[in-house]
Amino acid sequence: VKNRRWLLRSRPVRNVAAGDFELQPEPLQAPSLQPGQVLVRNRAFLCAPTLRNWLNEAGPSSRVTIGLGESIRGPGAAEVVGSANEQWPVGSRFTGVTPWQDYAVHSLDAVTTPVIRIPDGMTEIEALGPFGVNALTAYFGLTQVAQPRPGETVVVSAAAGSVGSCAVQVAKILGGRVIGIAGGRDKCDRWVTEVCGADAAIDYKTEDVRARLAQLCPAGVDVFFDNVGGEILQAVTDNTAIHARIAVCGQISAYDSDAPAPGPRDMMRVVYWRIRMQGFLVGDYVADVPRARAQLRDWMDRGLLRHRTDVRHGFERLPEALVDIFRGSNTGTLIVTTD
Amino acid sequence: VKNRRWLLRSRPVRNVAAGDFELQPEPLQAPSLQPGQVLVRNRAFLCAPTLRNWLNEAGPSSRVTIGLGESIRGPGAAEVVGSANEQWPVGSRFTGVTPWQDYAVHSLDAVTTPVIRIPDGMTEIEALGPFGVNALTAYFGLTQVAQPRPGETVVVSAAAGSVGSCAVQVAKILGGRVIGIAGGRDKCDRWVTEVCGADAAIDYKTEDVRARLAQLCPAGVDVFFDNVGGEILQAVTDNTAIHARIAVCGQISAYDSDAPAPGPRDMMRVVYWRIRMQGFLVGDYVADVPRARAQLRDWMDRGLLRHRTDVRHGFERLPEALVDIFRGSNTGTLIVTTD
Repeated sequence: VKNRRWLLRSRPVRNVAAGDFELQPEPLQAPSLQPGQVLVRNRAFLCAPTLRNWLNEAGPSSRVTIGLGESIRGPGAAEVVGSANEQWPVGSRFTGVTPWQDYAVHSLDAVTTPVIRIPDGMTEIEALGPFGVNALTAYFGLTQVAQPRPGETVVVSAAAGSVGSCAVQVAKILGGRVIGIAGGRDKCDRWVTEVCGADAAIDYKTEDVRARLAQLCPAGVDVFFDNVGGEILQAVTDNTAIHARIAVCGQISAYDSDAPAPGPRDMMRVVYWRIRMQGFLVGDYVADVPRARAQLRDWMDRGLLRHRTDVRHGFERLPEALVDIFRGSNTGTLIVTTD
Repeated sequence: VKNRRWLLRSRPVRNVAAGDFELQPEPLQAPSLQPGQVLVRNRAFLCAPTLRNWLNEAGPSSRVTIGLGESIRGPGAAEVVGSANEQWPVGSRFTGVTPWQDYAVHSLDAVTTPVIRIPDGMTEIEALGPFGVNALTAYFGLTQVAQPRPGETVVVSAAAGSVGSCAVQVAKILGGRVIGIAGGRDKCDRWVTEVCGADAAIDYKTEDVRARLAQLCPAGVDVFFDNVGGEILQAVTDNTAIHARIAVCGQISAYDSDAPAPGPRDMMRVVYWRIRMQGFLVGDYVADVPRARAQLRDWMDRGLLRHRTDVRHGFERLPEALVDIFRGSNTGTLIVTTD
C-alpha cells in the first residue's frame, strides 16, 4: 500500500500555483501507535483560504507554518483505521487539521488544533460542507462574536464565498438587514441577494464600496463580518454606527499578496465610535458544535438556509482545487475526496 | 461683566502652539434661556489630550470638530448660575464638555456629550481629578472593557500620564501583573513602579519596547490598555497571548502629527490570536459613575490608589497648559481654574 503525500515544494510568491506542491508517495508501513495515538485514513479535504497563510515563512502573525518538504496540512475529514485511543476506536471519524496524505498518525491526546467528531449518520461531505468548519465559522462569528440584534445592519464581505454566504443567511435569520459585498454582478444578484436573501449586494469590482455603503447604510453599519480586510475593511470602518462590532474572520485580500492586510488607518475611529473588533476561530467553540449543528440543520429543514458544495474527486487534484479558490472558480464549499 | 473666550485662531500644524488660540472677551448679556437650558459659570477645565484632535479639519475619524473662530470646547467643571431646567437648579454643578469661556449656555435636554453631576461635598478639582474623567476612563476601560482576570499580564502605555497611572494602579488592585510603558527612566522608576506599583516599567525612549515585552511577558500580554497607539500598539500586538483584549483609549502618538495612528499591521494576528480590540469612551458609562467613584474613593481611603493633580490658576493660561500636556511637562492631571 502506498501513502500518497502532497509536500510543499516551494513557498508561493504572491499567487499560489500548483507547481508549489509535489506529490510524493511513500510505502505505508504499519506504525506502532503510542498510547493516545490513532492511524487515520483521510477521506476528504476542505480547500480553505486560510491554508494559503500557512505556506508563508513564519512571521509575528503566523501560528502555523508548513516547512519546505513537509506535508501540506489542512482541514479534512478522517476515519480511524488503527487506534491506541479508547475515545477514538476504529471506525470513528472526525474533522480537523490533517496532513494532505492518504494515511496519517494523530496524537489526539496532545493535538493543538481541536478536532470535531463526525456523528453517525453524517457523511464526510456533510461534515466538511453544510455542517463543516465554514458554516460553523459563520454561525459562531455571528452568534458568539458579533451578536447582531434584530433590525441591525449587518455587512458581510466575500458574501458569495462558502463562509460569507452562510453568514448572510444566518444574519438574515437573526433578524438583521444584510448587505453582502462580492465580486461580480452575477454573483451579487443571483446568489447573494436572490438565494441567500441579502437585502442588497455591492459588487466591489464595479462599484465604489465606500460610497455604496454610505448610501445603503445612512445610519451606519452595526455589524461587519469580515472575510476580506484591506480596503473593504477600511470602507466599512469609515461607515460604522456607534458601538459597531467587527467579527474578524479572515483577510483574504492579502493571502495571495506579499503584504499583510492592515487594520483601520485611524484607530481614533475605533475609539470615538466605540468599535469592537474581534478575531475568532471555530476551535474555541468546539464544545458548542453539536448544538450549532442541530440549529443549522433545523434552519435547513425549514428552508431558511442553503448550502452549496463543490465536490471534486481524487487526491491528486488537491493543489489545483486550492488554486481555484483564489481564482474564485469554485461554486460552493470546495471539498476534494481522496478516492 | 466680561465673558472671556478662547477661540481657535488657526488649525495647528503638527505641534499645537499657544498661538493657535486667541483670547477674545465679549460683553456678557443676560441670556433668555429656553426651556431646559442653563447658564453656567465654568470653574475649571481639564487639559485632555483628546482635545487636540478636535482642532483638526473634519475627517472620517473625527466626531467633534471645532471651527475656526469658534470657542474651544473641552472637559470642564461648571456651576449653574441661571436655570430654566428643574433638574439643574442654580448652584448645581456638573462636569462635561463645555466651551473655554467664563460663561456658557447649555441645552442640557439635548446635550450630545453626557454630563456628570458633581455631588455635594466634592470640589471641582476632585470632580476633574481623582474622580474625574481620566480616573473614570482608567476604571471603566479595565473593569468594563478589558476585564483582566487575577494573575493576567496587563500592559499600560503612557503609564505615567493621568489616565495611565490610574490604569496601572487599578490593574494591580484587580490582581494583574502590570507593566507600564512611559517616557524616561525617572518617570518609570519613581512614579510607575515605585508609586503606582507596576511590576516593571519600560522606558520607550531608551529601550526596545518589543524586545523588552518579549522578555518580560514570555507567556504573552493578556490585556493592553492603550493610550498611545502606533509603534507601541504594534509591539504589544505582536506580543499578545491568545484571547488578548486591547482597550483602545487614545492614540496620543498621532495627536501632534499629521498622520493618524493606524491599527495593527497584520489583522491575521488578530484572527489567529483571537484578539479583541475595543474602543471606548466614559460617556457610555455615565449611569455607573456614582458607583465607580465610590469604589475609587474606597481604594484611596485604603491607600491602594494615589492621584496627582497639577492645578494651575487663571483662565488666560489655558492654551499654554494644553501645550504642556504634549511636552510632558505636567506632573499629574492638569487642571486650570478660571479664577
